[in-house]
Amino acid sequence: MDNRAIGVFDSGLGGLTAVKQLMDLLPEEDIIYFGDTGRVPYGTRSKDTIIKYTIQDINFLKTFQIKMIVVACGTASTVALPVLQDRVDLPMVGVLSEAVTSAVRQTKNNKIGVVATPATIKSGAFERAIHAAAPQAQTYGKACPLFVPLVENGHFDTQVAELVAREYLEPLKEADIDTLIMGCTHYPLLNRVVGRIMGPQVTLVNVGEETAKYVKRYLTEQDMRAEPGKKGHYSYFVSDSVENFSHLGSMFLQREIGEMVNLVDIEKYECDSPRPLER
Amino acid sequence: MDNRAIGVFDSGLGGLTAVKQLMDLLPEEDIIYFGDTGRVPYGTRSKDTIIKYTIQDINFLKTFQIKMIVVACGTASTVALPVLQDRVDLPMVGVLSEAVTSAVRQTKNNKIGVVATPATIKSGAFERAIHAAAPQAQTYGKACPLFVPLVENGHFDTQVAELVAREYLEPLKEADIDTLIMGCTHYPLLNRVVGRIMGPQVTLVNVGEETAKYVKRYLTEQDMRAEPGKKGHYSYFVSDSVENFSHLGSMFLQREIGEMVNLVDIEKYECDSPRPLER
Repeated sequence: MDNRAIGVFDSGLGGLTAVKQLMDLLPEEDIIYFGDTGRVPYGTRSKDTIIKYTIQDINFLKTFQIKMIVVACGTASTVALPVLQDRVDLPMVGVLSEAVTSAVRQTKNNKIGVVATPATIKSGAFERAIHAAAPQAQTYGKACPLFVPLVENGHFDTQVAELVAREYLEPLKEADIDTLIMGCTHYPLLNRVVGRIMGPQVTLVNVGEETAKYVKRYLTEQDMRAEPGKKGHYSYFVSDSVENFSHLGSMFLQREIGEMVNLVDIEKYECDSPRPLER
Repeated sequence: MDNRAIGVFDSGLGGLTAVKQLMDLLPEEDIIYFGDTGRVPYGTRSKDTIIKYTIQDINFLKTFQIKMIVVACGTASTVALPVLQDRVDLPMVGVLSEAVTSAVRQTKNNKIGVVATPATIKSGAFERAIHAAAPQAQTYGKACPLFVPLVENGHFDTQVAELVAREYLEPLKEADIDTLIMGCTHYPLLNRVVGRIMGPQVTLVNVGEETAKYVKRYLTEQDMRAEPGKKGHYSYFVSDSVENFSHLGSMFLQREIGEMVNLVDIEKYECDSPRPLER
């Protein structure tokens, strides 16, 4: 038994969709969430910048009593996590591996699409992981740079969201995929519009949901679950406007966030140098 | 005569529209441009964050031999410049004052609209300046949070840009404005779509253009112009991906940027504390 909290971070609000899944699956766990709202979005930034930001996010979370870190940001998971995984003395899980496992298990025609931020797609991480798990699979990645700004501005199922999504998804429809990894934790808010465009024959795989399932399995196997029946406590930290976070965040989380949000000066946290590690 | 450069900064690429105007009006002047592409956008951030970023941008430009600073960012001009104006030992001009002067001069029905980032609109700075110059004027401000992401992703005159713009501009059309301040240096790229929606009876005032005219007038009056007939040199610095900047930046500038772009670690520059000054 282990009552330490689960630390979760994302570039902004998107990671809250993973937090929601964690709350549903593991109601007894404490969760500490950091949303780097002052530096969102990560997905259009360079690799060096993303690694530096990720190190600072991890160092911030490590100031608390935590037992595990969930990298609830597709960009940080694919761009920074492979570089940093062995350097952190806590279990860390990103949103890539479980989503890939789920997609490979569900596809019938071995044509798997991935929508994500430009940095994630450029990294090729999803495609590599899919090919490692299913060498016969064909992958189709598509960068969707406007999805995060749309979601962060409340465009979930609007005409604009539909128009932007149609443009991004057209090549994936043409490729006849039957499984689509929604490779960014912001994207569940676009499930309805993406599902409508892709049609019922395409299975959407949400990275946050798959990751939450993994966290439950991992903590159970390692005997690291919190006390049964205990009620989880939630703390939220952001690097910019607390008010915006409370408002929009409640939509992401589908519950009130209220007063529990605190402001962090994330640039105060250690980040080594801008080229932190040899790669 | 003064051959020192003009320093210009913006949160990203938008300020290049002001640089283009400076190049056209003052071809003999050297220009040093800093685009904070690693931290764009400023307009959705809090006041404290914007002030901190602005201080770092100014401190970076001051490492060069410059004679003047142009704050080519609507958000920094309205949110940070009023706080910092008296603390910098160089002439500094933002994009607000000249645009306001021009709008007040051109309006016939005294109904002036302002479109800008959420931070700029929230600051109320344009509205205050308009009322100070023309107490009888009615002002209509509208925050357009998706305009910068659209422009930074090449959506200048697309169906998506039109749809988003129609939604933002509807209340300004209803208010029967005859003059619209495009209060962000990214927005000239949206001139065509905004002009079409607002109709020919509405005059668009572009902040970069008005500011460039002011810089020419100021340098002339102060006898600080560069040597006549000299050919200006241009240097570009960014805080993230140099390649993206060269590509999209050339569109903003309507000329090749080529190899002259350098990467800066802007967070290394002094920013006092996160609450830098008493306000």
